Amino acid sequence: MAKTHTLYQHGTLALLVPGLLDGTITMRELLEHGDTGIGTGEGLDGELVILDGVPYQVDSNGDVNVVKDDFTLPFANSHFAEYRRLTDIEKLSQSELDKKILSMTSNNTFFSLKVHGTFTNIKTRAVKKSHKPYATLGKTAENQSIFLKESVEGTLLSYYSPQIFDGAAVGGFHHHFLSDDHNFGGHVLGFGGATGRVEIQQFDTLEQHLPINNKDYMNYDFSDWDILGEIHNAEN
Amino acid sequence: MAKTHTLYQHGTLALLVPGLLDGTITMRELLEHGDTGIGTGEGLDGELVILDGVPYQVDSNGDVNVVKDDFTLPFANSHFAEYRRLTDIEKLSQSELDKKILSMTSNNTFFSLKVHGTFTNIKTRAVKKSHKPYATLGKTAENQSIFLKESVEGTLLSYYSPQIFDGAAVGGFHHHFLSDDHNFGGHVLGFGGATGRVEIQQFDTLEQHLPINNKDYMNYDFSDWDILGEIHNAEN
Repeated sequence: MAKTHTLYQHGTLALLVPGLLDGTITMRELLEHGDTGIGTGEGLDGELVILDGVPYQVDSNGDVNVVKDDFTLPFANSHFAEYRRLTDIEKLSQSELDKKILSMTSNNTFFSLKVHGTFTNIKTRAVKKSHKPYATLGKTAENQSIFLKESVEGTLLSYYSPQIFDGAAVGGFHHHFLSDDHNFGGHVLGFGGATGRVEIQQFDTLEQHLPINNKDYMNYDFSDWDILGEIHNAEN
Repeated sequence: MAKTHTLYQHGTLALLVPGLLDGTITMRELLEHGDTGIGTGEGLDGELVILDGVPYQVDSNGDVNVVKDDFTLPFANSHFAEYRRLTDIEKLSQSELDKKILSMTSNNTFFSLKVHGTFTNIKTRAVKKSHKPYATLGKTAENQSIFLKESVEGTLLSYYSPQIFDGAAVGGFHHHFLSDDHNFGGHVLGFGGATGRVEIQQFDTLEQHLPINNKDYMNYDFSDWDILGEIHNAEN
């Protein structure tokens, strides 16, 4: 039986900060925990969006690829879709959408949003894959491509995590996007004019899986890092 | 099949801070996720230690009671025991034990310790149950009893959580104790002279369950609180 009340997470946002970018879960394993999700590849290899069980990667060239079962990821979320319709929106910006959703639902539990519609403009990014020895998240993320698109139809797939989980997860909203024609997407930096249908799926459980077989992770001393400070610099 | 790599947690440490002390899981439900665990009752009603499937409560009178299936808790951990022997210790204080364990295992994942042995002295506490409307954690915890015991045999049951989960869980070590004669125990404030056998069980997964059916929790605005600051005041 699919566990539709559970959000699965592999890795933590924190482990990306010092550059622990080994892929520690395969796409095959991630898909055992859901048919919907987001993530990034080993070495921050692009931005992933999983829809209806199909894992799409937006790479740093802006190309959209379907990745194979043995593609590995350092950090990812997945869940089994069972969304319910929440509301319709018309010409909302990202901050207007975030605010509207939080006025309609609790911000004290994890949930996913799926917004299908038209975006008058949207800005995304995808990082270029780096190789070992990895640099820090801040350094690695400097090597990113930024993409802009006007008048695009597609799906915004988002996760919301309560602030107390910031650092383990992405506190607040984390939006990825994939266009209907599979030619555009990535980690969302901002959008305007979103018009469409908003669906929501609330979770009561976070299944947080850690890469305990990865020695670099297990032996790492995080105590010298201002993890939250670094995250907020890199994510914004 | 028992999931011996999973630590189950109901509620968060953070929700106790403003006084969201409703019992939101029954002991029956908690025991479905483990035969070993710790927690506190509704209104901070004592300190729980679950050993071999039996849930013992140390109340604010210092009495040890086996609680019933319908006993409810706002915050608790449980897991299915599959410990392995780690080391033997002789006359260690709490801080010496913590330090020794962290020199032997990774501090980047969740684990449980079970130390059976003799303690030349140990200090515990248990809070007196409060009733609605609840005061804050700081106020409620002022109404606690402190117990001291010399030369006692028993079991120290502990959980360790990586610092990035501080606030959701208790970052670092969280020790509870129950004497072999079931006459003494509680939340451990300190000990000296611990001699005995140390067992460890490492987890790769935190199953974090949130009380999404509790309106007080779901509607609460945590944004005005310095949650971590309040926790560190109350837990130390």
